Amino acid sequence: MSFKLTILGTSSALPTSDRYPSAHVLNVHERLFLIDCGEGTQMQMRRFRLRFAKINHIFISHLHGDHIFGLYPLLSSLNLMGRREKLNIYAPEPFEELITRHLADFDINLGYELLIHPLKGSTPRLILSDRRVEVTSFPLRHRVTAYGFIFREKPGENKIKKDKISEFHFTVAEMVKLKKGEDIVRDDGSVISVEAVTVPPPSPRSYAYCSDTGYFKKLSTYVGGVDLLYHEATFGSEHAALALQTGHSTASQAAKVARDANVRKLIIGHFSARYRSPDQLEEEARVIFPATEAAREGQCYEILPGGGFKE
Amino acid sequence: MSFKLTILGTSSALPTSDRYPSAHVLNVHERLFLIDCGEGTQMQMRRFRLRFAKINHIFISHLHGDHIFGLYPLLSSLNLMGRREKLNIYAPEPFEELITRHLADFDINLGYELLIHPLKGSTPRLILSDRRVEVTSFPLRHRVTAYGFIFREKPGENKIKKDKISEFHFTVAEMVKLKKGEDIVRDDGSVISVEAVTVPPPSPRSYAYCSDTGYFKKLSTYVGGVDLLYHEATFGSEHAALALQTGHSTASQAAKVARDANVRKLIIGHFSARYRSPDQLEEEARVIFPATEAAREGQCYEILPGGGFKE
Repeated sequence: MSFKLTILGTSSALPTSDRYPSAHVLNVHERLFLIDCGEGTQMQMRRFRLRFAKINHIFISHLHGDHIFGLYPLLSSLNLMGRREKLNIYAPEPFEELITRHLADFDINLGYELLIHPLKGSTPRLILSDRRVEVTSFPLRHRVTAYGFIFREKPGENKIKKDKISEFHFTVAEMVKLKKGEDIVRDDGSVISVEAVTVPPPSPRSYAYCSDTGYFKKLSTYVGGVDLLYHEATFGSEHAALALQTGHSTASQAAKVARDANVRKLIIGHFSARYRSPDQLEEEARVIFPATEAAREGQCYEILPGGGFKE
Repeated sequence: MSFKLTILGTSSALPTSDRYPSAHVLNVHERLFLIDCGEGTQMQMRRFRLRFAKINHIFISHLHGDHIFGLYPLLSSLNLMGRREKLNIYAPEPFEELITRHLADFDINLGYELLIHPLKGSTPRLILSDRRVEVTSFPLRHRVTAYGFIFREKPGENKIKKDKISEFHFTVAEMVKLKKGEDIVRDDGSVISVEAVTVPPPSPRSYAYCSDTGYFKKLSTYVGGVDLLYHEATFGSEHAALALQTGHSTASQAAKVARDANVRKLIIGHFSARYRSPDQLEEEARVIFPATEAAREGQCYEILPGGGFKE
């Protein structure tokens, strides 16, 4: 039951010789969620052996090129690979208008259906919910309309202890109740406490993605308590004014959000090309939030079912 | 005085783990001409250390994604790198309409001017001519309007032999004539033959680019006699019907064009993802035209001033 993030790109708008523009892939129970899709995303997916067919949902934070230039070629490649399954894309408006025109302009006839879900609103919104996962969007503060995303695993079921099954001879209906976490009250009035006969499921794992955004206090409430937080850190504090002007964050500001949100681990990325290495930004963030890591292309962050990190 | 081609991508529409979509860079006397611009072109340019600032002319053969998806991000990067010089783009219509809308849609304000030159016509047309080079477009046969390009070095000047300068005491006007290749007739009626006192310049070097195109007989007249010919070879002959249907060529057809055009060397590319290695296509072409090479990412083909190839 995997919950694993792979970083495909860590550059901001101007890529460098070893940094690609923004794209993350979250593997939740072997389903891949693609988050942003900068130029070269499909090359990076091949490089890190992420299977195209496992993607059914793509999330675009905002309509700036370094977060979307890889999407059109990816859609085209999926088409050439014979995809027939519907593909969901979550993006701010007017994405649907853009993609429709683009497909016409470039003579692309997709053999699969695109389901476009416009991102909207100035408060968090549930945008996807199925048996395994739920995804919420929340507003960021950038030069154009931008959204972050939280991916939360759905809680699993309680596991009934084997020896208790033979002891209590549960009916099917009772087992369903116990798995859901409910106590059993039998006809004779006796109560079987769920705690006594089951093992609770591991706590659901969560990941939040915040790019691109200037610092604002409320952001930490949106991502409060997630296990793993990705937050852009385009600049160091020496460029705080530039960060403010361009709608981006400094490493310190990213760390502040992580600290105030009480997350377990912070990953920073979206580094300006002026930083040859992200070490300086990592150091700056760690002063405020020690559990910070600078993202690198191909780096994986896996949250184990018990809650530990495997890197 | 370089004349050197670097291959950035050899895949057809679907890239593979080691093949990028179409893009070539021709270095003529340290000016770079970018020909097609598939996804990842800017990454490949960085990888092969080709300087962005040396590009002033970009040639787009046709408006299919695998030949243009890298252009928008490249224009954006040039902007972020502070470019101020005008940039010429040669592309079929309605490219100007597309790029204008794109820049508006994606919130990009270029700090430099784009000079768009629409490719037109059903016969070869001179589209660029300056002191060093001339570029001609010619029509290809594809599913959408598509053009190939020939890059020809302008002839150099004759070089006056040093010992002849002291022997004949040429005037400035005489030297100008000799450099242009003209004989001198002096006032006393004596004739100084240009052949006797000068060394002729090396013959001008030439490169032709043909992608994407189905086979047609006239193509070999368009590219007749060039030194280096790039011709797409998406398929092997076993897929001749598919080639015909999709407006592409087989390796044999590419070789036929090279043979009939009497070129010196043929490079094939734009390989379908179904071929893990292009070896089979290279072998097929060599049966008809032995001086064939399958292109590979990063491969350079340099034509020396004397006319020899340096690889």
